[in-house]
Amino acid sequence: MVGDEQQVRRELESCGGASAVKNIEVVHAEQQVEMDDSPSQILRTKRNSSIHTGLRLVKQGEGAAFFSAGNTGAVMACAKMILKTLPGGIDRPAIAAVMPTVKGVTVMCDVGANVDCKIGNYIQFAIMASAYSSLVMDKEAPPSVGLMSVGEEEVKGGSDITKNVFKFLQELGNSSVINFYGNVEGKDLFRGGTSDVVVVDGFSGNVALKVSESAGWYVSQMLKEEIRSSLLSKLGAIFMIPALKRIKKESGSL
Amino acid sequence: MVGDEQQVRRELESCGGASAVKNIEVVHAEQQVEMDDSPSQILRTKRNSSIHTGLRLVKQGEGAAFFSAGNTGAVMACAKMILKTLPGGIDRPAIAAVMPTVKGVTVMCDVGANVDCKIGNYIQFAIMASAYSSLVMDKEAPPSVGLMSVGEEEVKGGSDITKNVFKFLQELGNSSVINFYGNVEGKDLFRGGTSDVVVVDGFSGNVALKVSESAGWYVSQMLKEEIRSSLLSKLGAIFMIPALKRIKKESGSL
Repeated sequence: MVGDEQQVRRELESCGGASAVKNIEVVHAEQQVEMDDSPSQILRTKRNSSIHTGLRLVKQGEGAAFFSAGNTGAVMACAKMILKTLPGGIDRPAIAAVMPTVKGVTVMCDVGANVDCKIGNYIQFAIMASAYSSLVMDKEAPPSVGLMSVGEEEVKGGSDITKNVFKFLQELGNSSVINFYGNVEGKDLFRGGTSDVVVVDGFSGNVALKVSESAGWYVSQMLKEEIRSSLLSKLGAIFMIPALKRIKKESGSL
Repeated sequence: MVGDEQQVRRELESCGGASAVKNIEVVHAEQQVEMDDSPSQILRTKRNSSIHTGLRLVKQGEGAAFFSAGNTGAVMACAKMILKTLPGGIDRPAIAAVMPTVKGVTVMCDVGANVDCKIGNYIQFAIMASAYSSLVMDKEAPPSVGLMSVGEEEVKGGSDITKNVFKFLQELGNSSVINFYGNVEGKDLFRGGTSDVVVVDGFSGNVALKVSESAGWYVSQMLKEEIRSSLLSKLGAIFMIPALKRIKKESGSL
């Protein structure tokens, strides 16, 4: 765990007591990346931040992976500089989100690392997310890859760039590099049963991810309000507590 | 009501009986626009479709407005050709969606009419949606206008184009043409309390709208499943029927 050593140890102790601290190695980092620091600034001036230090440890083989809840742009820029991307194919890292659906999970990529995408980026998201879906999510190979669009039909297939991406993905599908499903729409995201992977530019993907959280939150707020509003509902809710808790758990970020 | 006269009359009768038909004028249109017809095709070859005919009636002053649940691209293309846009300012029509939030409603524009947007389109969405919010939604003037982005801070303000749009909207805000709020994020959409209007390109807006529907549907599916899964939950749900019905009504498309 990387960060201000004193602060990290204090937090760890408050979570699990002194025993918790014993099993966790804490590496001190004296700088801190703020949420409004720009990535280029961080690369130059914050080489002793927790993000920078943590990624360096992975590079040196002292860590197997790096997790952060901090500034996304900073993590991406530092990861790209320190860990690099796969040689001969991947230009930029991407962020995948594992979305729950009524029929298993869907991997949506990119959800915010690349807000301005070229055709090549989409293709690389398709390949990376397919690999993630196969290897990490244990999907039966080969996972089907959908392209996020505004209509299911190819002719209504969205923006100028996504129409072009469609053709490239179709081509890759024909030569069995990926298993191309075709266009999918926002409404399919939680339904499942379309594709295992959804490829999308980081701008729309980020909006989709955050709107999902917001919509789920909205429904739960309304539910809470309705439960509070009448004695009958309160009574009903008591019987439903286990069910409501399971929903909260299953829906994860919702 | 425009469409295949026999079919429309049959449907109307099945909804409200013979008395319903009496008060509704039905105009016959012999052609039908399919969901996968391309807009340019329709403009050339489907001049006797219900969309074309209905919009012509509005143009001639025989209708005050035109509603359609059909092919969005076709409605937009025909509306633009037949009704035209406001002279000297609006290049393309846009689609606004009125989103429910815990603090009133938010008007999101565009949600699918313009999937490839230039800076000017965003500015026009801001102006049109402000007018809609003031006049139709009775928001106290002037409604605040947010720009959909991937971070609240200006520096993290999203894609190349939205960063530019930010500057133009700020400028319009400074000269009081609109009331510019700044960037908003997907997570703010249903929370309310940020801006009255959310400006977004039609691609991301369409994804956001459909993902919201999907997320709401997902939560309600989980709720149904949990209710079915145990006797206790079923009992609780019986007490909560009025509350659950109100939620369904209030959340609209959710």
